[in-house]
Amino acid sequence: MQRIPARVGDAVDDIDTPALVVDLDPFERNLDLMANAARSAGVALRPHAKAHKCPDIADLQIEGGAVGICCQKVGEAEAFVAAGIRDVLVTNEIVGAAKLARLAALAKDATIGVLVDDADNVRHLGAAARDAGTTLDVLVEIDVGMKRCGIAPGAAAVALAETVVRTPGLRFRGLHAYHGSAQHLRAPAERRDAIATVVRLARETKAAIEAAGVPCPVVTGAGTGTWQLERDSGVFTELQPGSYAFMDVDYHRNALAPDEHDFEQSLYVLASVMSAPVRERAIVDAGLKAFAFDSGPPQVWHAPGLDYVKASDEHGVLTVAAGRDPPLPGDRVWLIPGHCDPTVNLYDWIVGVRGSRVECVWPVAARGALA
Amino acid sequence: MQRIPARVGDAVDDIDTPALVVDLDPFERNLDLMANAARSAGVALRPHAKAHKCPDIADLQIEGGAVGICCQKVGEAEAFVAAGIRDVLVTNEIVGAAKLARLAALAKDATIGVLVDDADNVRHLGAAARDAGTTLDVLVEIDVGMKRCGIAPGAAAVALAETVVRTPGLRFRGLHAYHGSAQHLRAPAERRDAIATVVRLARETKAAIEAAGVPCPVVTGAGTGTWQLERDSGVFTELQPGSYAFMDVDYHRNALAPDEHDFEQSLYVLASVMSAPVRERAIVDAGLKAFAFDSGPPQVWHAPGLDYVKASDEHGVLTVAAGRDPPLPGDRVWLIPGHCDPTVNLYDWIVGVRGSRVECVWPVAARGALA
Repeated sequence: MQRIPARVGDAVDDIDTPALVVDLDPFERNLDLMANAARSAGVALRPHAKAHKCPDIADLQIEGGAVGICCQKVGEAEAFVAAGIRDVLVTNEIVGAAKLARLAALAKDATIGVLVDDADNVRHLGAAARDAGTTLDVLVEIDVGMKRCGIAPGAAAVALAETVVRTPGLRFRGLHAYHGSAQHLRAPAERRDAIATVVRLARETKAAIEAAGVPCPVVTGAGTGTWQLERDSGVFTELQPGSYAFMDVDYHRNALAPDEHDFEQSLYVLASVMSAPVRERAIVDAGLKAFAFDSGPPQVWHAPGLDYVKASDEHGVLTVAAGRDPPLPGDRVWLIPGHCDPTVNLYDWIVGVRGSRVECVWPVAARGALA
Repeated sequence: MQRIPARVGDAVDDIDTPALVVDLDPFERNLDLMANAARSAGVALRPHAKAHKCPDIADLQIEGGAVGICCQKVGEAEAFVAAGIRDVLVTNEIVGAAKLARLAALAKDATIGVLVDDADNVRHLGAAARDAGTTLDVLVEIDVGMKRCGIAPGAAAVALAETVVRTPGLRFRGLHAYHGSAQHLRAPAERRDAIATVVRLARETKAAIEAAGVPCPVVTGAGTGTWQLERDSGVFTELQPGSYAFMDVDYHRNALAPDEHDFEQSLYVLASVMSAPVRERAIVDAGLKAFAFDSGPPQVWHAPGLDYVKASDEHGVLTVAAGRDPPLPGDRVWLIPGHCDPTVNLYDWIVGVRGSRVECVWPVAARGALA
């Protein structure tokens, strides 16, 4: 467990660094925007908690009208159920007797959903639920173009849904149709085209399942890059965005159509300059262990002439433009993570700030819940 | 805290996934090789604990003859001192009153060294040590070509060493001359050239400090890519390699000269296939939160025809070559991390295995010690 970097009431200037900081005003506006946009369209919101891993944030999302949360791992679901969340959809295939037993046990305390794309896995899930004396909600994951998990849409998905229906201990709920890579297509037209295919495949598969006499009440999916498209599809009943609460460098690279809502950056890593050996260079205390770098380096926020150009394990190298006052050791720098989800996973605490004060310090309870 | 993924005595096949696993036979050979190679050359070994963050491993290194360990962060040093390590060099500049007070307090229980590259920081360090009633060992960091932290070699370094000598609470110990990026130069000649400059600058600066009447007993640095060069320099008194215990995909990219020792891969992430929706593709349960990706994706170990080609937060996509038996859900895959240090930092436990059995489960006590 990392040291707590601040206490409620501390000045922002006194937060120990590096620290993961949420600016509460834009954060709350992001939550409200999404909650209102889902509610007014009559579509359920089930935010993805893999982004924040934080029960305090899940509580805020549910208070704002979310029907529950999504998780990716059994360990995440355990952390959220232990914190009192009562409706969790694990948007993933879960494999192995020990993990299935843990998942099924969770359904004693909460509504637990899970995905399937394989008939053997359906049988194992059913056995685990019966052993635990619980019932698991099950959604068939269809591959709608991402080429990751998911059974083929159409007849194969219908057959798998029928297998779920026939399996005691399981309750078939519908379809999971998520296109993750479409979230990060840069042009609105690219995202629109990708999601048009998603929607068509989901609609056709739902119709085929219902034609086989199986009710298919839920079609769930969508992320921060495409959620308006799924929301307005007439097919999706539920949206799963996660990053919208925080945002990151990568999501800001998406160009937006005029009718697309934008979200504000609310998540930062607060770092300190620890060395400024020459005028052109400053070294901060946040490197490869303070950020995920899969989507590139962090960006320096509101400090023209400072660029984060290179990282090693515990160092970040900033270049200092000519004509700019060079930073000094001890100076603070606010950095926008390249990719929010795996960056949040590096921290045990989220420090919530409003203006110049620390208003809350939230545990990242599901940090590192890999299994 | 993550769930413990295994218990001592468990079968390797029963380790919960994803898990960070050390193969103890090659791991111990790596420790022995480095310990013997330093000892026989009469150079001290102070392994870098930023790689493993694990007091059990530090204990093994010290039992093998290491004089102590290196850390990069005060929080890491606190974790190791709390676990009983009695000699820690923080190979970094430490800035800010709160952190300096923590560092100085540690010197009540252990020999604590730290780097400086700035005269103001020397004054702050001295004040912190005096306030705590302790003495800190101080090394002047010189920039030997990495362009990160470090004062210029030569006259500036001499002046800073003299400032340390004049500062009550501090004890000047020598020079820190580390060239991190040289560790990863691929050709032996490139590494040799880079370290020739390092050695020349360290030698000249040490001579200049001693010419000013200041003893300079320690010259410390080196990493897993270049340690033999510093060892044989006649100038370096101490080596700081860390990755040699584990190795990773990136270090294996270095071409070795005939006289360079190689280390064996001992560190793996053990993952499970959770979905195999089509013949050509298998999805494992280890993605961007299970590996650091700054040095590229992990490599599949000893499974010809399987390639880890893509990751999302919790998924890894493997391609399956034509003609190979496709993996099935539940199958295990051993993956070599692209970069060991920031990958280890994602786990709370290291599972040590010998043959088919779990022999130990070590806490990664300094995991996430960012501050």
